[in-house]
Amino acid sequence: MDDFTLQNPVMATYAIAACLMILKAVGMSWLTVQRMMQEKGGYRAPEDLRRTPLNPDPDPKQLAPNERVERIRRIHQNDLENIPFFLVAGLLFVLTAPPLWLAWLLLYGYVLSRLLHFAAYLTAQTHDMRATFWTVGSVILIIMTLWTLVTAVLS
Amino acid sequence: MDDFTLQNPVMATYAIAACLMILKAVGMSWLTVQRMMQEKGGYRAPEDLRRTPLNPDPDPKQLAPNERVERIRRIHQNDLENIPFFLVAGLLFVLTAPPLWLAWLLLYGYVLSRLLHFAAYLTAQTHDMRATFWTVGSVILIIMTLWTLVTAVLS
Amino acid sequence: MDDFTLQNPVMATYAIAACLMILKAVGMSWLTVQRMMQEKGGYRAPEDLRRTPLNPDPDPKQLAPNERVERIRRIHQNDLENIPFFLVAGLLFVLTAPPLWLAWLLLYGYVLSRLLHFAAYLTAQTHDMRATFWTVGSVILIIMTLWTLVTAVLS
Repeated sequence: MDDFTLQNPVMATYAIAACLMILKAVGMSWLTVQRMMQEKGGYRAPEDLRRTPLNPDPDPKQLAPNERVERIRRIHQNDLENIPFFLVAGLLFVLTAPPLWLAWLLLYGYVLSRLLHFAAYLTAQTHDMRATFWTVGSVILIIMTLWTLVTAVLS
Repeated sequence: MDDFTLQNPVMATYAIAACLMILKAVGMSWLTVQRMMQEKGGYRAPEDLRRTPLNPDPDPKQLAPNERVERIRRIHQNDLENIPFFLVAGLLFVLTAPPLWLAWLLLYGYVLSRLLHFAAYLTAQTHDMRATFWTVGSVILIIMTLWTLVTAVLS
Repeated sequence: MDDFTLQNPVMATYAIAACLMILKAVGMSWLTVQRMMQEKGGYRAPEDLRRTPLNPDPDPKQLAPNERVERIRRIHQNDLENIPFFLVAGLLFVLTAPPLWLAWLLLYGYVLSRLLHFAAYLTAQTHDMRATFWTVGSVILIIMTLWTLVTAVLS
């Protein structure tokens, strides 16, 4: 069928949104690494206290939670609770052959909501602002999933 | 090819099961929010103690773990450990063109096992009951994955 | 289209890599169960202290963190941060119709990097060795995602 190729503009839209979200989530791992290196702490495994080229002066305090690292871990966990489900819901949404404008609105709207959520969380804005951006993304995800569910049930 | 459309009954079965599981997992986020609002606690980020319209009377105790909230977080974490892998394993299982009765049995059986696991965990049934429902789902997931692996290796 | 069937060698390669990674991640759940049974501890839910056939002699210490169990949980969490994104990135990578040798290199290279990461983490090798294997996998994931993103943008 023709829907499931990058020549289908809806599929290409999904692929772009999905790749951006994958890079975003994987970026949280790298940001955690960067902050652990800056802070020389926030580690989690006992063996990380061994003297190595990357950790020449080990100290038991390095295993204590470090808020700058924990902040990224909380953002990362929020990604894990949301993005994998978006990735599959978006793929199935493509199969329902939605109009291109709707695919743009929902898929890029989701990406935008997650980037704003990240910016609000990283800079410690109020819970209310962070929750607003999260809610926009979550509602988009639910709409796409319900749309696909209804289409599949009726097919 | 014809397998990868919602006109294929096996694919439609997968899409329905996948949408239900996505809604289930996303529902855990909303249930966490609901319980955090009921308990006015179980928050995690230091900035959540700022006075805002959603939190008019902040109190440092709001950052302490709250068992009613933590219960949903444990259920959610269990979803994250299982459902994303089901979503991809199920999709690949469709590509092997299994008989429809088998797709029904495995895909809807998985959904049922996860809903029962949720009910048992939410109401704090014994570990043994919860573990039984989890095991059913995990074994289904392993069967689908092995089936797909063997089919792909032999293809 | 012909890309999205197991008759396409690139798709079959992806399916094999994906199934191996799903089994790996699900295996962490079973390894956690096995270690919880060996240690008779490392439990997390208050109701797990009830006397049941699987836990005939409950003890409050069973809810304390147990390092042998926590090690598997950390490995599992690392899987959750990586493998779901690999599963979707790999699927979209197939849609770009890459040369078979490149698909082999990236997809099986990723699987190998994760298995080595697991071996290093399980046996508590230095952070530097574990980080090296993680980095190889994460870079492969980023390459596949960027490749797909560029292909989708140009399509």
